Amino acid sequence: MSRPEVSPLLTDLYQLTMIQGYLEHGMTGPASFELFARKLPKGRNFLLACGLEQALQYLETLRFSPEELGWLDATGRFSTALLDWLEGLNFDGDVDAMPEGTVFFPDEPMLRVTASLPLAQLVETRLINILHFQTLIASKAARARLAAPGKLLVDFGLRRAHGAEAGLMAARAAWVAGFDGTSNVLAGMRFGMPIMGTMAHSWVLAHDSERESFLHFARTHPEQTVLLIDTWDTERGARIAAEAAAELAREGIRVRGVRLDSGDLGEHARKVRRILDAAGLQDATIFASGNLDERRIEALEASGAPIDGYGVGTRMVTSSDAAWLDCAYKLQEYAGTPRRKLSEGKATWPGRKQVWRHRKDGRMDFDILGLADETHAGEPLLKPVMRRGRRLAPPESLDAIRERTRRELDALPPACRALDGGAPVPVRVSGQLQELAREVDAALRG
Amino acid sequence: MSRPEVSPLLTDLYQLTMIQGYLEHGMTGPASFELFARKLPKGRNFLLACGLEQALQYLETLRFSPEELGWLDATGRFSTALLDWLEGLNFDGDVDAMPEGTVFFPDEPMLRVTASLPLAQLVETRLINILHFQTLIASKAARARLAAPGKLLVDFGLRRAHGAEAGLMAARAAWVAGFDGTSNVLAGMRFGMPIMGTMAHSWVLAHDSERESFLHFARTHPEQTVLLIDTWDTERGARIAAEAAAELAREGIRVRGVRLDSGDLGEHARKVRRILDAAGLQDATIFASGNLDERRIEALEASGAPIDGYGVGTRMVTSSDAAWLDCAYKLQEYAGTPRRKLSEGKATWPGRKQVWRHRKDGRMDFDILGLADETHAGEPLLKPVMRRGRRLAPPESLDAIRERTRRELDALPPACRALDGGAPVPVRVSGQLQELAREVDAALRG
Repeated sequence: MSRPEVSPLLTDLYQLTMIQGYLEHGMTGPASFELFARKLPKGRNFLLACGLEQALQYLETLRFSPEELGWLDATGRFSTALLDWLEGLNFDGDVDAMPEGTVFFPDEPMLRVTASLPLAQLVETRLINILHFQTLIASKAARARLAAPGKLLVDFGLRRAHGAEAGLMAARAAWVAGFDGTSNVLAGMRFGMPIMGTMAHSWVLAHDSERESFLHFARTHPEQTVLLIDTWDTERGARIAAEAAAELAREGIRVRGVRLDSGDLGEHARKVRRILDAAGLQDATIFASGNLDERRIEALEASGAPIDGYGVGTRMVTSSDAAWLDCAYKLQEYAGTPRRKLSEGKATWPGRKQVWRHRKDGRMDFDILGLADETHAGEPLLKPVMRRGRRLAPPESLDAIRERTRRELDALPPACRALDGGAPVPVRVSGQLQELAREVDAALRG
Repeated sequence: MSRPEVSPLLTDLYQLTMIQGYLEHGMTGPASFELFARKLPKGRNFLLACGLEQALQYLETLRFSPEELGWLDATGRFSTALLDWLEGLNFDGDVDAMPEGTVFFPDEPMLRVTASLPLAQLVETRLINILHFQTLIASKAARARLAAPGKLLVDFGLRRAHGAEAGLMAARAAWVAGFDGTSNVLAGMRFGMPIMGTMAHSWVLAHDSERESFLHFARTHPEQTVLLIDTWDTERGARIAAEAAAELAREGIRVRGVRLDSGDLGEHARKVRRILDAAGLQDATIFASGNLDERRIEALEASGAPIDGYGVGTRMVTSSDAAWLDCAYKLQEYAGTPRRKLSEGKATWPGRKQVWRHRKDGRMDFDILGLADETHAGEPLLKPVMRRGRRLAPPESLDAIRERTRRELDALPPACRALDGGAPVPVRVSGQLQELAREVDAALRG
């Protein structure tokens, strides 16, 4: 059975249809495609590049299996020339990209592929599929990180993520964006992320009393006891937890904290804090979860709620306020000639491009979007990462990527950090690029 | 490397933590968990059950590999008793479920697992992950089907689906809901779905003129020529397509249709229809795509736009108006005792339940939600599908599932079919279930 995350058939039919045409008409010259967002979702001021490592893994391992080739052949849709080409395929193109954890803005390419036209076309669907999703989630998770500086943030999203890969890659993207851990065990194995968790309501419900459920859990996990106290009534749960903690203390077991998962989390946290403090449990932490996102976290933080950490799930891993980015992978140059589509609302800047970032007093000031062969001051954000199908460097460590994210978020100007309102960092289009766009249009109209 | 879609580590840490506790405290009696939605997303009137086949495959193949067990051991978090239990694991429980393509409503269980408490607990995360997503997308896609009766509907969503499995399973869910095909080649191979596609803007852009791009494509694919005409100007594209069609007709090649992908699709379709008709191309179809969802399709249909088919992508496969369902998998009975949580806003009906559907004049009239051992008139919607880990019947064909969906959508009362406003079919809670809920609460308070 073809594995969805590595099968080259995880693509749109028209890629194969077009490649057959390119081969038939001798259109196999070098092409450059760029992946970029056309605009920001409503209420967002920046994007955080994420997923490059998985994109490169996809390109490195791109192969058609005999079973897949046999199935394509049996459809009767494809020419022998196409099937022969697919059989011998491996990715021998070039990739330039923004490193993961880089903040970027609309119209700025986060990745450029340069390869023969059919090859660069073939990889479109899955490259977007990989990079769109992780960038979407990292961009969302970064906002939660900004909303709760210094607080523990844990990804709880696996169950309502859109499938297996979404759950796994959302955990990675949240980690890239600055989360502290995940509930997702496979993400722990794959990415070396800290895995974290407490208990579910089913644990409490399976016992004959809340008290017994707390005692049992603590005795099984004396080092990591966080008690879920909202199964029936949060404050009653807090009092039962405090009583259980006193009994456990005599056994040498310390209750580390409690979790709230429903109701008005700020109000409950204040009441629970008082109950715990009155019982001498000043060290016990309060962890909150339940339909949280960065806006709710920001509101809880602003209210001074005594919450020490947050479990963030569904709303982050589905990016529920903006479940997709208006991004595209577009042909920018073929056979040495810049290209541009003008479809209404979807016009793109032609040519192979670069982004130069300018900073002022340590903060991002403005970007210049220009042609790759221009010279500008500022830091070029697209770096060469693959040449003739080979990586130019080993995979970046997630620690290094997280450190880049931290620096990037620190460098956001205040307007760009705002969760509501605010503005992105301005992107200035170079004179040469504007001129090229006019020339490309004039040539078309001529 | 553990494959995300089959690894049992694709679960939340707390499942393993709780299982260790259940084993230590001898809590291995039979438990029943039910999966249900707490409420409908805003603007929705029904859900369409989908994903059962993948859920059963997951249960049938649930195994921990030596590599996975070794990794768990190396974390130092888990007891030998837990690791031994995981090593010998296979799913030997019972499953009752609504067949795929069944319409259902909040509080109604779409699936019940009965197994030893640790086993039923272990499978929670991935069962939700599988069933939540496909049900989410099938429920969304069914609305597009209702919006455009008789029109060609094609899934174009892969690139912006949330990862590999999401793209594959969204194609399946849309097919279950009544779509006619998908652009996703792997979905064609896996599920035997019709695969469909036209051309991308890059095809047009890679040529020196739109006309040449149309001629090339038609000559390569004389049987399946649908020309994308909006790369620069839709009506100009239509005229060029008409001229190319005349030239191709002399070669014996028929242009089957055109695709619009931007701008006011209804307005463009009317103008393009006139251009095609004037050129004698009355048989050429107009296919529309570009940020479509069921509401836009309904508006286009209501306006009488001459559109023959729709490509529906991102907004469907991300269910962008409601990117998640408020669903849960909850312990309803353990060791013969019904259970219920009361967390604010999240109270559940206790006990093992059944749903009986009542119809009137061929339409759904009301459902009864009661205890599984009650007797009611009406059709019981939950069917036994697995006993002691074995399926009671071979997998249902997708054709049979599609036929069920068709009948279910036909049987929706008008208020429930409405894309805006309207109302779900009423769910009546049986007297016995209401009484049981009171008893469970009284026992807790006592």
